[in-house]
Amino acid sequence: MDQKGLLIVISGPSGAGKGTICKSLLNANKDIKISVSATTRSPRKGEVEGKNYYFISKEQFEEMLQEDALLEYAKVYENYYGTPKNYVLENLDSGNDVLLEIDIVGALQVKEKFKDGIFIFILPPSLEELKNRIVGRGTESDKDIEIRYGCAIEEIEQVIKYDYAVINDDIERATRDVEAIIKAEKCKVSRMHNNIKSIL
Amino acid sequence: MDQKGLLIVISGPSGAGKGTICKSLLNANKDIKISVSATTRSPRKGEVEGKNYYFISKEQFEEMLQEDALLEYAKVYENYYGTPKNYVLENLDSGNDVLLEIDIVGALQVKEKFKDGIFIFILPPSLEELKNRIVGRGTESDKDIEIRYGCAIEEIEQVIKYDYAVINDDIERATRDVEAIIKAEKCKVSRMHNNIKSIL
Repeated sequence: MDQKGLLIVISGPSGAGKGTICKSLLNANKDIKISVSATTRSPRKGEVEGKNYYFISKEQFEEMLQEDALLEYAKVYENYYGTPKNYVLENLDSGNDVLLEIDIVGALQVKEKFKDGIFIFILPPSLEELKNRIVGRGTESDKDIEIRYGCAIEEIEQVIKYDYAVINDDIERATRDVEAIIKAEKCKVSRMHNNIKSIL
Repeated sequence: MDQKGLLIVISGPSGAGKGTICKSLLNANKDIKISVSATTRSPRKGEVEGKNYYFISKEQFEEMLQEDALLEYAKVYENYYGTPKNYVLENLDSGNDVLLEIDIVGALQVKEKFKDGIFIFILPPSLEELKNRIVGRGTESDKDIEIRYGCAIEEIEQVIKYDYAVINDDIERATRDVEAIIKAEKCKVSRMHNNIKSIL
């Protein structure tokens, strides 16, 4: 297969479970590369530098912005989040599939640059369940919970800008949906020119 | 799920193995309805009326044509083939997925009417393997084999008019590809409006 790697963008509102689905996807598909974002927010309990995020200062982040070293970035809840460009581009060029787990604002920036990417929106089964999950996480203040939940409806309306939506009613089932989407995208005629040429 | 059923069109050159893949797909997915074509050609050994085809006379076929009772039809190797319209439309309206296994000429007619259908082209792993399979089937005369193989290259070039291509190097693997395509298509945002509305 000569085709370049796929850019897989997984996005959705806080509490929809995009992080859990990405973890489950990566566990079952060791060949997919995960892009680690940079952020200026403080680490949550248990988060590891270079695995969950690159935790950097506001000054460092703004330097990366000036150097055009970010694929996308967003200021969400007073913190910067961004995707370092090099890692993604190098892996795609080498034919590796790259997974981005990013917020909606960032995802839509990437979509403008990567028409060929696969944009998947993770939906909660209901708004009630979404709130339960944000509360249940226990990592945020009451104020943060209200801010996140308040944005959810507005965020979910952005789903129409995505290619695919996966309802996260069950992690295993939702992960199988994402895997099917990736497999199907690789069967798109527009991505198979080299295979077809080699048959003929 | 309020969404209507999916129209799944599986097509490709003779010998690519579309029949075997369809059989394998239906075995594993009992809820998919298969549309049985009508034809004026003679039954091959083992073919069953109403299961493989409706074997009808030329006069009967032309009557259906006049009554606009066919979704598509084609004259291939001097015989008519066509898809009775009622069965397909009724099942799609009831929310059932319907599978059409048809020749390329017919598939492209369906594509003009059903923009929403999923058009999957089954490719052989190589032209050599394609010829081996046509010969190995042992149901056709030497002349028929030459006619079918001679058309193969021209037919394979039609793949660019399809949405997806699946290489049939292994029946099981190819069937999993088709299943992934169906699952992914159901996750398309354009097909999920009702689900999204019910969440909001």
